[in-house]
Amino acid sequence: MNGSYSYTPGETDVPISKGLVSIRNLSKKQIESLLDESDRMLSFCRRKDKLDNLGNKIMATLFYEPSTRTRLSFESAMQRLGGGVIGFSDPRSSSVMKGESLADTIRIVSSYSDVIVIRHPEHGAAVEALRNSTVPVINAGDGIGEHPTQTILDLFTIGKEKKKVSGLNIAIIGDLKNGRTTHSLSYALSLFGNSLTFISPKELAMPDDIVAGLKSEFGTDMQISDSINDAKDADVIYMTRMQKERFTGKEDAEAGMPYYNINAKFVSESRNNVIIMHPLPRLAELSPEIDSLPNSVYFKQASYGVPVRMAILDAVLNANASNA
Amino acid sequence: MNGSYSYTPGETDVPISKGLVSIRNLSKKQIESLLDESDRMLSFCRRKDKLDNLGNKIMATLFYEPSTRTRLSFESAMQRLGGGVIGFSDPRSSSVMKGESLADTIRIVSSYSDVIVIRHPEHGAAVEALRNSTVPVINAGDGIGEHPTQTILDLFTIGKEKKKVSGLNIAIIGDLKNGRTTHSLSYALSLFGNSLTFISPKELAMPDDIVAGLKSEFGTDMQISDSINDAKDADVIYMTRMQKERFTGKEDAEAGMPYYNINAKFVSESRNNVIIMHPLPRLAELSPEIDSLPNSVYFKQASYGVPVRMAILDAVLNANASNA
Amino acid sequence: MNGSYSYTPGETDVPISKGLVSIRNLSKKQIESLLDESDRMLSFCRRKDKLDNLGNKIMATLFYEPSTRTRLSFESAMQRLGGGVIGFSDPRSSSVMKGESLADTIRIVSSYSDVIVIRHPEHGAAVEALRNSTVPVINAGDGIGEHPTQTILDLFTIGKEKKKVSGLNIAIIGDLKNGRTTHSLSYALSLFGNSLTFISPKELAMPDDIVAGLKSEFGTDMQISDSINDAKDADVIYMTRMQKERFTGKEDAEAGMPYYNINAKFVSESRNNVIIMHPLPRLAELSPEIDSLPNSVYFKQASYGVPVRMAILDAVLNANASNA
Repeated sequence: MNGSYSYTPGETDVPISKGLVSIRNLSKKQIESLLDESDRMLSFCRRKDKLDNLGNKIMATLFYEPSTRTRLSFESAMQRLGGGVIGFSDPRSSSVMKGESLADTIRIVSSYSDVIVIRHPEHGAAVEALRNSTVPVINAGDGIGEHPTQTILDLFTIGKEKKKVSGLNIAIIGDLKNGRTTHSLSYALSLFGNSLTFISPKELAMPDDIVAGLKSEFGTDMQISDSINDAKDADVIYMTRMQKERFTGKEDAEAGMPYYNINAKFVSESRNNVIIMHPLPRLAELSPEIDSLPNSVYFKQASYGVPVRMAILDAVLNANASNA
Repeated sequence: MNGSYSYTPGETDVPISKGLVSIRNLSKKQIESLLDESDRMLSFCRRKDKLDNLGNKIMATLFYEPSTRTRLSFESAMQRLGGGVIGFSDPRSSSVMKGESLADTIRIVSSYSDVIVIRHPEHGAAVEALRNSTVPVINAGDGIGEHPTQTILDLFTIGKEKKKVSGLNIAIIGDLKNGRTTHSLSYALSLFGNSLTFISPKELAMPDDIVAGLKSEFGTDMQISDSINDAKDADVIYMTRMQKERFTGKEDAEAGMPYYNINAKFVSESRNNVIIMHPLPRLAELSPEIDSLPNSVYFKQASYGVPVRMAILDAVLNANASNA
Repeated sequence: MNGSYSYTPGETDVPISKGLVSIRNLSKKQIESLLDESDRMLSFCRRKDKLDNLGNKIMATLFYEPSTRTRLSFESAMQRLGGGVIGFSDPRSSSVMKGESLADTIRIVSSYSDVIVIRHPEHGAAVEALRNSTVPVINAGDGIGEHPTQTILDLFTIGKEKKKVSGLNIAIIGDLKNGRTTHSLSYALSLFGNSLTFISPKELAMPDDIVAGLKSEFGTDMQISDSINDAKDADVIYMTRMQKERFTGKEDAEAGMPYYNINAKFVSESRNNVIIMHPLPRLAELSPEIDSLPNSVYFKQASYGVPVRMAILDAVLNANASNA
């Protein structure tokens, strides 16, 4: 990759050598290839093999927002592939950058590293980074924007547990208005031909334009509900964090917002082989009593973060090498 | 190691493959083996040999309390063995974990790494971590609880300097009520058959139950004093930080607490070959004028942090490998 | 290197095996050797070769002041040479060190690592570190003191762009009173026989003793001005950050301080092949419209941070090995 890249948001044919800023940049075939590669990386991890695929590469993790989970899995993935890591983990230690534009920071850090992984509180920051970088950029979450590596990880988990990633009925529950995770996931699940049930308080429903977009682009079969009971027929329940602060206090009580919770009773009333997923951290929406049920795959899902990110880093950097 | 471990505090026969949460988990033979291995690691360090014992392993350092010294020596040790490091060094950069239980954090991070090193302000946090981890856990200090790797390092220093770790008269000085270091050390020194002199202000004396426990379990010969002059006959003086704030101001002046200090005059009045140890950082309790005396081994003691932690990491992870 | 080193500030014949605390420690020949070696490292970086020169070495980066740019380039350099990194990046995560003297911290950390890179807010901290370290110390900026690796990097950039580092007319612009970068650079440029034009508001002029020193030591041809127009005949314009806060507000308006800025018009009026440098971050003193001009080499200059620091680390640690 030489020079920076004039990226257009929504662009669908972006080579993986540029990095990964949106799940929409990837074709179905590219995603399938990443899922296959993730499985191969999982075998390596389980055998504790030493890999050196990225032995001469440096990853910069620029975390303008704290994010222990995503950062640690990226850094573990890079090191399991033999690579090195530089970066900052805390917006405060980048305070010297105050006054410096994101563009300038990216120009400089891209000359210190072979790939940039960025988390930033502002929507669009990853695209801005990609436009100014001379190395590939991976979006690790940009505000209410995207978090594409989480989506690959979610698809991978579904594939491992259900042996397929299409033709399933998937209930997505929580704050569907503001959650970047659920937007990207709905897109990817539609691309692979699944039926979706969106469950949220009415005030936090999946935005109309997203629903309309999925309908027109993929003809996705979608149900919209505010009752968690409509998840009982799903093959997959994708629970997200219920921001408790939204649901307590006088105002919210008046708003009458439901507080969703999955407990052992709920699971027993659901499909026998339903799997329960969650991007974590979880609060009270998943009762600890279900942790040991075979249906609860959220910790397994988290554990796939390392092999999936190994596959993504390897694809990005090796595609890059072969294009160089 | 498969699945998490149902650990009971005080358990004495814990395999090293589970990690190290308390010095009480180790038998005398296990400790001796770690001391021997530390010596071998020290030789490697001195020859600047490159080791790759842990070349395919990742250590997670989860420091919920800042601790530059312990963290840096663990991270140096892991890298000198060829391993990689992930983690956080600051409670503030783990703020996203707010609301997430320690148990959940450990479940997830144990799927990203091969060993977890945890420092936490709450007593019992390391045991809680071990119970929820699928990888070994090493306690790097849990509140007023334990700090077992410091104890191994202290024993190693005594062994290097006095050519034995038993049959010595050892004075332990400072705040003996609240210091986790002195509690664990007293246990280990008793296990190896040493005589102990506890010197502290009366208000900060070694707790009665600990003294009674050492007496009944090991029949340890113990003296209790509030005068530092009772250290002058010791083979080893183990000084700890006098928290100056405790000893100044009106209230404390009234309490009449002594302020202990070791200077050149004190050393000249002590046993000829006494060694002076300190877990550091030191404040005014050790006068800089004694730094260059051959008796002062506290910087040497600190330097052993790397080989001792190399030995511990290697034992934990290789025992683990062979048990897998 | 055995034991710590009794360093005298201003000492000129310091072996590189002791580290690098001041540009004045290096002879012209030593600097030329580092520039040649930097060029070799740049070739390695461009070919993406894997080096293992420092494969068994650990670098400690002790940053008592946040400094993302310098820290990241050092950490990238060390890892590109196969070495490991420990350290802290934030003064707050070293809060446990409160109360511990810098001398004690250095004594301990030098037993954990093979080289210490220190940034500290206090002038003289690097010399204090060198005096207490048993491993080489590299000064990454000590208050208003020195920043010698920045100076090597600046000379390297001039050499790459102008094919020589002597006989040039170099304009240095900005706050020349307080800027450590411009002091060290003026020394090095004088050592190599260049003409200097110092441009600053009168209140922020290059200190008289520095000007007098360069005159008597090297007979440097120097011009002093407060008009940026006097830079238009330079071969090299070295711009530094204009601290905007100094130039706004009532007091400063009364002081009548000029605000310097380089834009496309200014460049078009300057020498045809002038190069424009800046240690970055830049604020409004360099208009973004000049970023794409071939004269603007400040991002290239930043990118040289990695190969130059690779050359310095390699020289320091390999000289050290052969002297041991």
